[in-house]
Amino acid sequence: MEPCQLSATQAASLIQQRKLSAEELVRSCLARIEARDPTVRAWLHVDPAMVIRNARELDKLAPPGVNPKTPLHGIPWGAKDIIDTADMPTTHNSPIYPGVRTNRDAACIGVVRASGGVILGKTDTVEFASGGRKALSRNPYNPAHTPGGSSSGSGAAVGDFHVPFAFGTQTGGSHIRPAAFNGIYAIKPTWGVVSREGVRMSSMTLDTVGWYARCVDDLMMAAEAFRLPKTTEPFNAGPESLRVGVCRSPVWSAIEPAGADALALAAKRLGDAGAIVEEFILPDPFNHLHDAHADIVQTEGGWSFLPEYLSSYGILAPDLRDKVENLRGVTPEKLLASYTLADSCRPVFDRLFGRGLDVILTPSAPGEAPEGLHTTGSAIFQSMWTLLHVPCVAIPVGRGPKGLPVGIQIVGPRMSDTRLLGIARALAPVIDTDPQAPLRELWH
Amino acid sequence: MEPCQLSATQAASLIQQRKLSAEELVRSCLARIEARDPTVRAWLHVDPAMVIRNARELDKLAPPGVNPKTPLHGIPWGAKDIIDTADMPTTHNSPIYPGVRTNRDAACIGVVRASGGVILGKTDTVEFASGGRKALSRNPYNPAHTPGGSSSGSGAAVGDFHVPFAFGTQTGGSHIRPAAFNGIYAIKPTWGVVSREGVRMSSMTLDTVGWYARCVDDLMMAAEAFRLPKTTEPFNAGPESLRVGVCRSPVWSAIEPAGADALALAAKRLGDAGAIVEEFILPDPFNHLHDAHADIVQTEGGWSFLPEYLSSYGILAPDLRDKVENLRGVTPEKLLASYTLADSCRPVFDRLFGRGLDVILTPSAPGEAPEGLHTTGSAIFQSMWTLLHVPCVAIPVGRGPKGLPVGIQIVGPRMSDTRLLGIARALAPVIDTDPQAPLRELWH
Repeated sequence: MEPCQLSATQAASLIQQRKLSAEELVRSCLARIEARDPTVRAWLHVDPAMVIRNARELDKLAPPGVNPKTPLHGIPWGAKDIIDTADMPTTHNSPIYPGVRTNRDAACIGVVRASGGVILGKTDTVEFASGGRKALSRNPYNPAHTPGGSSSGSGAAVGDFHVPFAFGTQTGGSHIRPAAFNGIYAIKPTWGVVSREGVRMSSMTLDTVGWYARCVDDLMMAAEAFRLPKTTEPFNAGPESLRVGVCRSPVWSAIEPAGADALALAAKRLGDAGAIVEEFILPDPFNHLHDAHADIVQTEGGWSFLPEYLSSYGILAPDLRDKVENLRGVTPEKLLASYTLADSCRPVFDRLFGRGLDVILTPSAPGEAPEGLHTTGSAIFQSMWTLLHVPCVAIPVGRGPKGLPVGIQIVGPRMSDTRLLGIARALAPVIDTDPQAPLRELWH
Repeated sequence: MEPCQLSATQAASLIQQRKLSAEELVRSCLARIEARDPTVRAWLHVDPAMVIRNARELDKLAPPGVNPKTPLHGIPWGAKDIIDTADMPTTHNSPIYPGVRTNRDAACIGVVRASGGVILGKTDTVEFASGGRKALSRNPYNPAHTPGGSSSGSGAAVGDFHVPFAFGTQTGGSHIRPAAFNGIYAIKPTWGVVSREGVRMSSMTLDTVGWYARCVDDLMMAAEAFRLPKTTEPFNAGPESLRVGVCRSPVWSAIEPAGADALALAAKRLGDAGAIVEEFILPDPFNHLHDAHADIVQTEGGWSFLPEYLSSYGILAPDLRDKVENLRGVTPEKLLASYTLADSCRPVFDRLFGRGLDVILTPSAPGEAPEGLHTTGSAIFQSMWTLLHVPCVAIPVGRGPKGLPVGIQIVGPRMSDTRLLGIARALAPVIDTDPQAPLRELWH
């Protein structure tokens, strides 16, 4: 097994035992990138010499053992290229900011570095994570298909074993969808708990920073570094003690057969493992959250892209210009009504948990990754959860009819991030038993 | 009259008529700074040669006349030093970021530049606009007193005629308070409508960018450039058509005699001018907003300063460390309850307007600026409005017993920014009739 194939947890353990050096690990990742990136195109910027130099510096530090201050010691991360890095350019995949170096790390990058992590490079993204140019990244399972977006390169890089961790962001469905399409795990934390300082803003109300990994243990390792919220009820039990609500969600009409199979198979496996699994239907006001999300994305996006609209109209993407011009025609009254709906649904959602419900199981995408790079797929199964500010964890289930990964997500109440990861750790071995198996044969 | 004493509106008109050049205007501002800043200490960074070069470039452009695309042509702005500027350092007045140049403008700077404005320099601030080091800035009316904070230098610079405009930010009371203490005008817009991209974050829920000026017309001029929201009911009438609610607010016990006099005098003058002026008492839940604000500032501040806590513990200010360590002991449940309270109060507040109420008149600070630079005064009369996300306009009233300025603020519902400025334009000539007069004699 090459070091790049290790999970972060495995690699950290070997580094702590001095059986692996940070330099060996990053060299393995760089070799994987060199071999695979001409096909996958996950990366916009990698400076191998600098990465090796940074890893060597870490190796020079006293043997870390288990140092609680540097839980990510020597572990490589990718960063979506809307995230500022002191020592690399941040382009937003936009012609407006070619090669700009901000000389200052985004908050999330600062936490990784202070925790001993190595930033391996910058990954391709939909322009500004919002519209305009698509990433050139391809799905590692089939390069004719999208890896999803807008966190296209980060999802593909983790899925294709270039790095064990990468940052993505979600405003609509930009983080959880690439996890599903690339057969990997992801957490979108509760809104706000991971600072989005230094991450290009599209929407104040929605933008959320999260990370990808290839197992729940790795998601938890980073969650420790980021001090994700811990509620009074941690979860350390098995699936048999869980009450799972299967939520087809108000946008179920957009589901494809592969997405429906994944949800049904995951629910069946959980039931077989002893969990109480019941259909869960959200109260009526939640049916309008999808529209409220669209109003907020449009209006706040207009506020965010005003500087580029004024300074760089000719090279600002038409769909971003449309936001500034408010082509959707969202009135101030309509915007406020959308805020009020979301604000009132959030505590209602939180209160659903604890009495008869531990976690929600719901689609992460309509189905497999679409063909072509002109689309990154649909955010329809994610936008409601983004607007609710709730933590979501993506878990792979199996393969669709085209041989591409299909997943589900689990959702908990706000501020339950650590508990939700505990639940994910109990559920993942049940749900993700045979990632290469065709869903249809298993379920039907 | 020196050009630096002109309002932005006056200066823009002279520039449009080619009776004043941008270079002459910035040279006058620079001369004022040279003469006064050894006393006032408003500025952390000014590069006169670059400013003159930039102004000359503007003067080379075709004679602008009234160009709707560049409404701020040639007008100088100061920027609080937590706001990124492509061509100047951004230090946050912190030893953690000495002289960092981000090579990219914050969104608000981008809008000013694209609208023809000149960024004159960076103004001193409380460290990270949040805690730790105070600014060295002094009150231009009496250098033994604070100009307020955290937007200390911006308030002092506009009050002392260094620039007609400067950016401030508000998380608690950092923008409106310096306006009151420096005898100037300010708008804190509706939360979110001015992008805070590239402005150091303390609190996702609270941080708001606004600007200072020396008259309402100037505030409006910039509001046009920033496209502040326009509701269906603009206001173009006089004070006699207004219903004004005088809100002593739930924290009235913190008022000082000068603050009480300013509120009473403003209310009396409005009544004398024909406005319907009535006492206004907020519904009971609003009494708890002050505590909710404290919970949110503490928790979100902890999320914001985690990178510096991990990387620079030894030089991170103790009160910012306390936020990361959650010294207030805010539980996740308490935080969510505080969010829910604020979220539920906002639409209630908005609905108060239109039926029997046009605008709220309320204190902007307890009284005059305190003596000494070890404090910037109290945010107690502003934090509730910040949490409600509502637009506020600061208006000077007169002088307190120490000869220092005292003001009030007017407040409207969310998204009514342009209407509120229209109301401010009607009220200011009535309220701010004799800025140098002692309040006590006028009122008692």
